[in-house]
Amino acid sequence: MSFPPDATLADAGEFGLISAIVDLFPQGEQVLVGPGDDAAVLRVRTGHVVVSTDLMVEGRHFRRDWAEAADVGHRAAAQNLSDINAMGGRATSLTVGLAAPADLPVQWALDFARGFADECALVGASVVGGDLTRADQVVIAVTVLGACTESPVLRSGARPGDVLALCGRQGWAAGGLAVLGRGFRSPRVLVEAYRRPEPPYDAGRAAAAAGATSLIDVSDGLLAEAGHLADDSGVAIDVHASAFDVPEPLHAVGAALGADPMQFILGGGDDHALLGTFPSVEAVPDGWAVIGAVSAGSGVTVDGAAYDGPTGWTHF
Amino acid sequence: MSFPPDATLADAGEFGLISAIVDLFPQGEQVLVGPGDDAAVLRVRTGHVVVSTDLMVEGRHFRRDWAEAADVGHRAAAQNLSDINAMGGRATSLTVGLAAPADLPVQWALDFARGFADECALVGASVVGGDLTRADQVVIAVTVLGACTESPVLRSGARPGDVLALCGRQGWAAGGLAVLGRGFRSPRVLVEAYRRPEPPYDAGRAAAAAGATSLIDVSDGLLAEAGHLADDSGVAIDVHASAFDVPEPLHAVGAALGADPMQFILGGGDDHALLGTFPSVEAVPDGWAVIGAVSAGSGVTVDGAAYDGPTGWTHF
Repeated sequence: MSFPPDATLADAGEFGLISAIVDLFPQGEQVLVGPGDDAAVLRVRTGHVVVSTDLMVEGRHFRRDWAEAADVGHRAAAQNLSDINAMGGRATSLTVGLAAPADLPVQWALDFARGFADECALVGASVVGGDLTRADQVVIAVTVLGACTESPVLRSGARPGDVLALCGRQGWAAGGLAVLGRGFRSPRVLVEAYRRPEPPYDAGRAAAAAGATSLIDVSDGLLAEAGHLADDSGVAIDVHASAFDVPEPLHAVGAALGADPMQFILGGGDDHALLGTFPSVEAVPDGWAVIGAVSAGSGVTVDGAAYDGPTGWTHF
Repeated sequence: MSFPPDATLADAGEFGLISAIVDLFPQGEQVLVGPGDDAAVLRVRTGHVVVSTDLMVEGRHFRRDWAEAADVGHRAAAQNLSDINAMGGRATSLTVGLAAPADLPVQWALDFARGFADECALVGASVVGGDLTRADQVVIAVTVLGACTESPVLRSGARPGDVLALCGRQGWAAGGLAVLGRGFRSPRVLVEAYRRPEPPYDAGRAAAAAGATSLIDVSDGLLAEAGHLADDSGVAIDVHASAFDVPEPLHAVGAALGADPMQFILGGGDDHALLGTFPSVEAVPDGWAVIGAVSAGSGVTVDGAAYDGPTGWTHF
């Protein structure tokens, strides 16, 4: 099905648009029944299913003038796929709900769907169902299903003596968001990092296999997520600022905005790096950087002291 | 955790409110990891997982002045649980996302969550995860997971010679919606049917066991759903208007609004009745009413003729 270039959702109609979107979603061999019935049906090989859900709201989690529709699709998929990564699991199937104004261009919805599908393809997951309806602003609701071993890696397993380690870029997306917020479009590498995060999708399973004692994905800010690990595990976590090499673009943004670039690293989310704890430095897999230590106690410190910069994102 | 009676979401904060809501969600024995980690983890006994997702948008699918928060919760759960019913499956687990304005009363969110949990408890399903964020209007995103046999009942299995049958109330919710739309609050039984549908939750599995050839839940209108069965199965369906006893309250509403009460039955959704086809009248289980017939051809007719009233709901 094709649409005129300036067609809106109201022009396309619900069923025409759904049909065009579904064509963009290839179905994996685990899908017995894909989109189009009352529900999808999946074959499940293992005895455990991991499930997570996230909402993205226009104006709050993304802006249509700050990112292309395909970027929003990539990011919506990435942040959900990352949640399965953070359990040490493997994502297999997703559903996506799109609520949008009637005047949304059909092309936006199609580009969004294509970006979403392309990101899912990176891990071999299929989009098996969804919903489409009208709303005043664009709201994207994603649920992801995955498989995991009998011992998923939780937030609550960190123990005194463990080391804290990070895998993936950290602070880049926050730097990109900061420059977009000031009306700039560069450094481009940071803006792109915000528009299309690149979560380390294989790192979760590798960490689980290596004996990670806890895992979380950094969506709301490094120190905030470290705080979740500390709270849920009943331990204290100290982050070592010296463990981070501040990348040059973050230095540039810090200088331009008059900000300490470390605040993007310590307070930023949206890169969907993985944060975890391991029993020893030796247990930390390749590709991870040791960035701190776990001890008895509670709370999060930076180099042994309270941190007075922004630590993360709150939703209300 | 308790909140002042006039507290809003902004007052409660994300984590306080999530904690209070999660307390309302008992976890079944299938839940290995419930709310609070990056993802939930479920034990799965059968080899097939059924999954469906739906969005409900304030002002479009519900109005806060037309239904209590608990009603909205019941209905949000019911319409999703009904999708699993329509596959001949059994719902086990749900996620729920709530996007809402910062000035939404905390009590609304808690009452919504309680209604949602109570509806899920009717079928023994657990709320295992969710998301909470800010938006301009209330948007509710639900995903439901369930178990089904190796042969889920699809929309595409109807065959010429089958009989069409219905289980559950039909037209009551549409009648209730019609009177609410005119500013009335009675007949109360219809308004309540709209606020809290009562899907026949056991009927899907019973129909599957009885050899149903196709199943669909009536969410968008009886003739519209019959049209989906006809299209997906490649058959013609004739609905017999005489098969319906128009209940007295629908007669009353029809008279008051100057409408044919059959239009609520033929065009109405929201009751989440089950519509299905069976190889013979003898195969139709107790509790179902035969309301039509399947033949070779295409499209849906009423008593052999095209129907010129409203046939259902479109989302754009």
